[in-house]
Amino acid sequence: MGWFGSVDLGGTNCKSAVGDDSNTLVTKDVLATGDDPAALVAGLASWFRQQGRQLDAVGVASFGPLDVAGGRMATTPKRGWHGFPLRDELSKALGVPVALDTDVRASVLAEWSWGAARGLEDVLYVTVGTGIGVSAIVAGQLIRAGRHPEMGHMRIPQQPDDRWQGSCTFHGSCWEGLAAGSALAARYGVPATELGDDDAWQLEARYLALGVSNLVCLYRPERIVIGGGVLRHPGLLEAVRSEASRLLNPSYFPEAADLGEVLAPPGLGQDSGLMGGLLLARGLTAGPGPTGAT
Amino acid sequence: MGWFGSVDLGGTNCKSAVGDDSNTLVTKDVLATGDDPAALVAGLASWFRQQGRQLDAVGVASFGPLDVAGGRMATTPKRGWHGFPLRDELSKALGVPVALDTDVRASVLAEWSWGAARGLEDVLYVTVGTGIGVSAIVAGQLIRAGRHPEMGHMRIPQQPDDRWQGSCTFHGSCWEGLAAGSALAARYGVPATELGDDDAWQLEARYLALGVSNLVCLYRPERIVIGGGVLRHPGLLEAVRSEASRLLNPSYFPEAADLGEVLAPPGLGQDSGLMGGLLLARGLTAGPGPTGAT
Repeated sequence: MGWFGSVDLGGTNCKSAVGDDSNTLVTKDVLATGDDPAALVAGLASWFRQQGRQLDAVGVASFGPLDVAGGRMATTPKRGWHGFPLRDELSKALGVPVALDTDVRASVLAEWSWGAARGLEDVLYVTVGTGIGVSAIVAGQLIRAGRHPEMGHMRIPQQPDDRWQGSCTFHGSCWEGLAAGSALAARYGVPATELGDDDAWQLEARYLALGVSNLVCLYRPERIVIGGGVLRHPGLLEAVRSEASRLLNPSYFPEAADLGEVLAPPGLGQDSGLMGGLLLARGLTAGPGPTGAT
Repeated sequence: MGWFGSVDLGGTNCKSAVGDDSNTLVTKDVLATGDDPAALVAGLASWFRQQGRQLDAVGVASFGPLDVAGGRMATTPKRGWHGFPLRDELSKALGVPVALDTDVRASVLAEWSWGAARGLEDVLYVTVGTGIGVSAIVAGQLIRAGRHPEMGHMRIPQQPDDRWQGSCTFHGSCWEGLAAGSALAARYGVPATELGDDDAWQLEARYLALGVSNLVCLYRPERIVIGGGVLRHPGLLEAVRSEASRLLNPSYFPEAADLGEVLAPPGLGQDSGLMGGLLLARGLTAGPGPTGAT
């Protein structure tokens, strides 16, 4: 029996899990990510020890941007995390090999293996949480890590009466700067989970739909799996589908006539990232990595 | 000695050429595309006959959108062309096999084989003419034809003081509806080639840069080859590079520090489309098609 650790590291929360070699997550927990990565590494090491399983490897599906080859955080605006060598520090603390990749790359592999994108060739995975991350499988191949797309930073049109400057440190009112969870929190002064204003959610649906419709124009995927904390707001997914359909215009994009199939929630629910981490961990021990990973 | 016909069919002009089996274009001409596709087919057949070469096959690199598998025009807004079965009509008129694909797919293959994208793995080709067309090579593979991306129809932000409704029949002020040659003509009442207004060209550079920077976010290509009639305006390419660099922010996208390498004019000059047509024609007779074509 082999045991594998998995970490789904978001900008706000850090989920951890232990999985077995039949890909079942047997224990799960959540820590706060915080501004001190060394403290989080210590917290994770302590949690994994408490589970009492001899791990073969650990996979980390992390927020980005990452320097995947170097196993470290890249130019993230998140305080304390810039450049942190997460892979090696966690490996040292746990005494096992650690694989690090972006949460969206790990998640799309998990959704492709076991979730809402099984058997498809052209898939996008979008997570709308603290930030907006997107990963792509094109013609059955995961888009490479070296120059990982940063689709959350595309520009979309703001509503004419919306002059808000946006929350992205680097790009102001890019997609992420207008529509991510951190943008909602910065704009309305409450976390997205506590935001009750219907007009705010209508605007959010509009901005998410603008990004999604651009993704359709640029990739024409068979499926866009869209998840993340913000999408848990009741009715939001349906509102995004309806607005994206209008923006795309089914007379031009036939698939826009019914986006119920194209724009789908994660098949693995909240566990896409953790299952992706499990795939990364198994890739370290089980010979070749997941199909198509580069 | 084999001879091949090539057609580069734009919304306004239709170029034709005869090439030899060393991939040299030995004769070239230009016809007006017009609103009557049957008349254009007759004109092309007559022109090819006048060249006095026994052709093995003809390749057509055409404006879109196309139904590539069906060999016909799809839902084009161009008057007279909707649904026209171009491949079979031209084949009947010429008595030789005809291959039809989009101008941008044919052009990116030509630029990849002989032009500004030789040896690269991740390449976009953008043409800004009557419309805006984009094609992509991802990880050394041409993106498929079946659900061809329509990147020209993504939305970009308009300047706050620009309330123009855009010229796209389907999407109003999408990228093509704001920045294609037909948008300039509709807006300013003169063809792009005669447009002298510096403010207009500054706005054009801004809108092209917004689209280009979105392409960088979504694909992170090694090179974007950008051509088409509108790009012939002196200084426009440099202005687009400079504005796209600012939009992308080199602190986030390191490659934006110098887009001179990333954003390049076609290595084949005005002949990318015709050379692409030649590749399509040769693909019909020379066993397997161009590498990576699907």
